[in-house]
Amino acid sequence: MSFSTGRPVSEANLMESPKKLRIAIDAMGGDYAPEREIAGAAEALRTSNAKFDIILVGDEQVIRRQLQEQKANDVSCKIVHTSQTITMEDSPTAALKQKKDSSLAVGMRLHQEGKADAFVSIGNTGAVLSAATLILGRIKGVSRPTIGTFIPAEHGFCLLLDAGANVDCREQQLYEFAVMGSIYVQLLWKKKHPTVALLNVGEEKSKGTEAVVKAYKLLSASKLNFIGNVEGRDILKANADVVVCDGFVGNSILKFGESIPGYLKSKLKQFAERGFINKVAVGLALWPLLGVKGVTIIGHGSSTATGIKNMILRAAEVAHTQINKDIETALITSV
Amino acid sequence: MSFSTGRPVSEANLMESPKKLRIAIDAMGGDYAPEREIAGAAEALRTSNAKFDIILVGDEQVIRRQLQEQKANDVSCKIVHTSQTITMEDSPTAALKQKKDSSLAVGMRLHQEGKADAFVSIGNTGAVLSAATLILGRIKGVSRPTIGTFIPAEHGFCLLLDAGANVDCREQQLYEFAVMGSIYVQLLWKKKHPTVALLNVGEEKSKGTEAVVKAYKLLSASKLNFIGNVEGRDILKANADVVVCDGFVGNSILKFGESIPGYLKSKLKQFAERGFINKVAVGLALWPLLGVKGVTIIGHGSSTATGIKNMILRAAEVAHTQINKDIETALITSV
Repeated sequence: MSFSTGRPVSEANLMESPKKLRIAIDAMGGDYAPEREIAGAAEALRTSNAKFDIILVGDEQVIRRQLQEQKANDVSCKIVHTSQTITMEDSPTAALKQKKDSSLAVGMRLHQEGKADAFVSIGNTGAVLSAATLILGRIKGVSRPTIGTFIPAEHGFCLLLDAGANVDCREQQLYEFAVMGSIYVQLLWKKKHPTVALLNVGEEKSKGTEAVVKAYKLLSASKLNFIGNVEGRDILKANADVVVCDGFVGNSILKFGESIPGYLKSKLKQFAERGFINKVAVGLALWPLLGVKGVTIIGHGSSTATGIKNMILRAAEVAHTQINKDIETALITSV
Repeated sequence: MSFSTGRPVSEANLMESPKKLRIAIDAMGGDYAPEREIAGAAEALRTSNAKFDIILVGDEQVIRRQLQEQKANDVSCKIVHTSQTITMEDSPTAALKQKKDSSLAVGMRLHQEGKADAFVSIGNTGAVLSAATLILGRIKGVSRPTIGTFIPAEHGFCLLLDAGANVDCREQQLYEFAVMGSIYVQLLWKKKHPTVALLNVGEEKSKGTEAVVKAYKLLSASKLNFIGNVEGRDILKANADVVVCDGFVGNSILKFGESIPGYLKSKLKQFAERGFINKVAVGLALWPLLGVKGVTIIGHGSSTATGIKNMILRAAEVAHTQINKDIETALITSV
């Protein structure tokens, strides 16, 4: 199970404080609400031997019916009734204004008022982010809250942030993500000096956008254990405990990564074929250059002879077409 | 072999034109030059039954020795001698100025002068891009040349661009990438109306950065077969023949994707374990929200009960720490 949660959830951690925590759960937010929320809550209580209390936030009647159906009436959860639900289709800010009695908003307020010690939701991500920012407020020093994600890497986990909360980031935000991620890893994974890296298109500090180049400087000058730039290929190698990037890049990588299990399932038969993995690798290693007056095919410096043969055949194919004439025609006549 | 080149290299395509093409190859650019370049050239000639000529550009003595070692003296390649080599470490623009007799620059000039119909290099990518732009020049209507990459998707291939040539892009560049990619797919994959998509953090047209929102409008108004926004998870599903994004995002996804074969190899034992793939999926589906005054854990709407249990346990763990106090202290005292 440790593989599925970034790090093993340590029972010891849960026992450190004498205070019994209360975790509020948005019972109505998910695609299969409240069935899975309630089943998850029951599982959590059993796993932890009820070392914390759970507050289910949502339609009380629906929740009670679901508890009965799951034969989980013995599960001792507090229920806080709400009459509204924010859906996945709702606009985050509008929904928060209009649905003040939604499970999401009420649960977040319970937390803000100190009646719950944490809040869990699988509902509309944008609405959860907005609610947290508006109701809980930002921590002093934080210009933008960030959502992180755990990437299951080769020899451990990597905390990648931002995972989509902030599509446009300046250097200051990237620096703040690094600080927050580093503290998360220190406290939750018990690592003393977490390694922090900046996602970039190359290792050199001059690489990347203006914001990324400036972030490199901020991170270098900080007290963080900054190991420099890493590229997309380094994420799964887990050289860095924390990898920071803007939310557009992080979200794209996260979602691309999420799609890989399904992709692998669809390709299982091909796995039996010899060399499948190498073929995928080679497939990614041949790049046409478009937009110049000519035919140029570029490849990895470590391409194999077969890879180079493929590049040559591709170059011949391209050279047989009138691609550049077509591009020129399309771009100077259209739009 | 079709899997490794984006699309099968069709013999028919090579025969369409009566003219015998001449393909110039940078024989000195790769990590194992000129061994693999020469082996690749020989393979290409055999595969195509010498339907084109090959010009090896590089140190003639070294090339001749390599041809002998590979017992490939019968392979009829023209050799154009050069005295310099641009290395992977060279700065692209400086190297092009200083190494005018490099295999890369000379090969590109042969193409520009019409003495070769295409140029293939696995050398310094930045230098190839610069050389192509400076020596060949941009096609009219193109503001920035782009490098594409083929993503081996579930039911075919996807041409992703830009793959790293342009880290910062405005809407006009994204639009141009779409036009160029669409024409490439039409001509090389023989698809009449290639589907074109814009990589984004959500499907709605209001999502993304300012440039991406504006690109959506440009693409919608164009004659392209634009299918709207796709997210990272859609790339491998190959709903789109062409996916456009800025080079920072494209490069990160490309390199992340490149690392997956190695990652899978390292995880082969775990594949035998039941549920490995699902565990990876769950690992990606639990996200801490950092920067707000509280503890908020967010997850997928389609999370399973076990996933929700893990979120609750994680919430309890986080709530036991003083993470927010630490973040505040770190951000208001440091840098």
